[in-house]
Amino acid sequence: MQNTLLKLHNNKYFGYIVTVIIVFSTLLIGVKTYNIGYILILEKIETAITIFFLFEIILRFIICTNKKRFFYNFWNVFHSLIVIISIIAIEHSEYVFLARLSYLRVLHIIDTIPDLRLLINTLIRSLPSMGYLLFLMFTLFYMYAAVGSFIFEDINPNLWGNISISMLTLFQVITFGDWAKVMYETMEIHPWSWIYYLSFIFLNGFIFLNMMIAIAVDKIQQEHERLSALNKN
Amino acid sequence: MQNTLLKLHNNKYFGYIVTVIIVFSTLLIGVKTYNIGYILILEKIETAITIFFLFEIILRFIICTNKKRFFYNFWNVFHSLIVIISIIAIEHSEYVFLARLSYLRVLHIIDTIPDLRLLINTLIRSLPSMGYLLFLMFTLFYMYAAVGSFIFEDINPNLWGNISISMLTLFQVITFGDWAKVMYETMEIHPWSWIYYLSFIFLNGFIFLNMMIAIAVDKIQQEHERLSALNKN
Amino acid sequence: MQNTLLKLHNNKYFGYIVTVIIVFSTLLIGVKTYNIGYILILEKIETAITIFFLFEIILRFIICTNKKRFFYNFWNVFHSLIVIISIIAIEHSEYVFLARLSYLRVLHIIDTIPDLRLLINTLIRSLPSMGYLLFLMFTLFYMYAAVGSFIFEDINPNLWGNISISMLTLFQVITFGDWAKVMYETMEIHPWSWIYYLSFIFLNGFIFLNMMIAIAVDKIQQEHERLSALNKN
Amino acid sequence: MQNTLLKLHNNKYFGYIVTVIIVFSTLLIGVKTYNIGYILILEKIETAITIFFLFEIILRFIICTNKKRFFYNFWNVFHSLIVIISIIAIEHSEYVFLARLSYLRVLHIIDTIPDLRLLINTLIRSLPSMGYLLFLMFTLFYMYAAVGSFIFEDINPNLWGNISISMLTLFQVITFGDWAKVMYETMEIHPWSWIYYLSFIFLNGFIFLNMMIAIAVDKIQQEHERLSALNKN
Repeated sequence: MQNTLLKLHNNKYFGYIVTVIIVFSTLLIGVKTYNIGYILILEKIETAITIFFLFEIILRFIICTNKKRFFYNFWNVFHSLIVIISIIAIEHSEYVFLARLSYLRVLHIIDTIPDLRLLINTLIRSLPSMGYLLFLMFTLFYMYAAVGSFIFEDINPNLWGNISISMLTLFQVITFGDWAKVMYETMEIHPWSWIYYLSFIFLNGFIFLNMMIAIAVDKIQQEHERLSALNKN
Repeated sequence: MQNTLLKLHNNKYFGYIVTVIIVFSTLLIGVKTYNIGYILILEKIETAITIFFLFEIILRFIICTNKKRFFYNFWNVFHSLIVIISIIAIEHSEYVFLARLSYLRVLHIIDTIPDLRLLINTLIRSLPSMGYLLFLMFTLFYMYAAVGSFIFEDINPNLWGNISISMLTLFQVITFGDWAKVMYETMEIHPWSWIYYLSFIFLNGFIFLNMMIAIAVDKIQQEHERLSALNKN
Repeated sequence: MQNTLLKLHNNKYFGYIVTVIIVFSTLLIGVKTYNIGYILILEKIETAITIFFLFEIILRFIICTNKKRFFYNFWNVFHSLIVIISIIAIEHSEYVFLARLSYLRVLHIIDTIPDLRLLINTLIRSLPSMGYLLFLMFTLFYMYAAVGSFIFEDINPNLWGNISISMLTLFQVITFGDWAKVMYETMEIHPWSWIYYLSFIFLNGFIFLNMMIAIAVDKIQQEHERLSALNKN
Repeated sequence: MQNTLLKLHNNKYFGYIVTVIIVFSTLLIGVKTYNIGYILILEKIETAITIFFLFEIILRFIICTNKKRFFYNFWNVFHSLIVIISIIAIEHSEYVFLARLSYLRVLHIIDTIPDLRLLINTLIRSLPSMGYLLFLMFTLFYMYAAVGSFIFEDINPNLWGNISISMLTLFQVITFGDWAKVMYETMEIHPWSWIYYLSFIFLNGFIFLNMMIAIAVDKIQQEHERLSALNKN
């Protein structure tokens, strides 16, 4: 019987059906935002989808030769969690947020396209360096926000009231959202405060843009060397 | 006679005339946007240009030794289509949009400049990877838009009414167009919604900027290796 | 006794405590911006932290075998300065700004994480080239600002009154902060002034974006070659 | 006597004086934008600077062994032109614009710093590829502007009146200056016009960002190969 199920699971049409249902369930989420009614029908379709995925995950578990290693695979765990959450969401319709989490199922499509998986792997491998970079940037934000909230607090408490508001204001400055207005306001009382803004934009832009690209190029080169070394053996 | 036509087509002055008429017809489109009148004269010039290109494509077809392979060349098909569309547009002057399509003729200039052709080829070769990247970005947009339209719909239906409006709002956020205003509006009711915006900007900026450059560098390196391998043989 | 202190300093738990106190003192700066009161308690905690770091720097000096080379290390000098500033700030509470400088202590964390140190080193090594690039950009800004303040001064003195205001306006243009409004204002009197803005955006964007990335890639390649040469020996 | 002049010219202090006077004359331009008066004195200083540079260029010409090749050097021609323009500007004080051109003298500093010269050389070598890229972008702008001015002209003639205004509007869109406002205006009449804006931003951003970086990396690699080949010989 396990053999029959294995055949079913490896059948390419079954794979297509899974992908189609994932895409369909994702589109359903979008459709529901239009408030077009038919809520009862939509809910029944959602229940059907959940049952289908429950069946699919059980199928996966049965055909898995080494039951212990089943949960070592990220996608198996991920998929099981989504199914459990969906079932809870059906029984307790008041946990709307839980139902929403089920769109994350769309991420499964990444696993089915090899080129996309490669892209994601490179992305994941550059995460640690990116993490350190973000930490550096956060430190810079924190320090500038601390200085900003001490100096500019009396000028506009809505923008510089405390360190978290100041950080949000600085994030607005770095994304160039009306930053000139923010700057001219403080320059009326502290004429030299343009140094604060310009140094921040230069330092952050410099660290962020320059180093992020350097890291990306670095990782791609390492990936190339790794792949060519694999091909030689 | 085919020989005489071949000579005519390969004559460099003929090539210059084709380029000049393409540029001229492109400028004509621009001139027409000024509504300076002389519509009758402009239309006659357009008809003349269309007849010239009809003649040119027939010439190309005649000198082509293998008639079957004529339509294997992208530019031949492209050019024939533009000519057919132009002729339909002359006869049915109500199909204004068809007439407009004829500016695409300007793209033919790309084919006449080798350096530009190389640039375009590299561009085309990086399209599949870029396509996957765009798919990833679209998924991210879709998921954030779904969450956004559920949480923020009651706050401002003009920005978060349904999933397509939400995606447009998120596109506005990612291009930094007054995104702070959008954020502060939702923060009044959901004080923690800055996490939604900042995580979206970081995730999307990170994937987009970082990976796009990595792909570009990757393709250039592959192109270099391919060219140097060609030179060795 | 020096041996006992050396053991204490190299003890990893001591290192953890130092890191924790640095992070804690940094968070304290943020907490103070909320004006939650408890000023007396906060000040006492700050004094305690300063005493701890005074003790730490003395410890470092004692265990240093070559007292002369102690101040050759950037972090030793940096740390000593921060401690001295903190002590002065405690005694003279009117020098609020001095007390603020003590957050720079957070930069010390960079030294404790090897990956972050590498990132910073690459950053520092690309500083000279970046400096020249900034000089080029500044020259471009200066020249455009000089031209702008001569031509546009009468149109809007708030934006083009003198060379420093003009440079600030141009910085606003380059960061795309409502630059269209600035341009349309001058275009009413000088219809051709769009050439001024567009050439500035193209020149500056071109120099900045293009060369900054080229330098970053260059430095990474040099760093790779340097590291692989080190590994061979 | 030529020998004495050669010694004078190659004297490093003479080089320093030239650099100082260039910087000084550049700062003078900035000072004049403040309208602080002292116009007579400033004009006398400017005349003195012009005479100094006239003397310097004559000195250069005298010590040049091959008079014919004197004008093959870009900087000699550049410098001579600036001096001639400055002299005309002194005699005809009504040609204010000519006087302004003399700040271009500051570009001479580039020639005196080797690292900066290298940067500029790489920049110049990537100009042809960049030129083609700009041509491609211009074609895209032109085609979108033509379409835009036909479809959106009746909605807002100030933004879409003719092809040049449309191109300016599109440039505003691509730099993200309130582009959402421009889009929402046209979406009221043509609900599908978001496709126009988003495709334009994606196409242009993709071509511009992606290819510009690819070219920069390409040129740097070629420069490296060229330099290492030079070192081997």
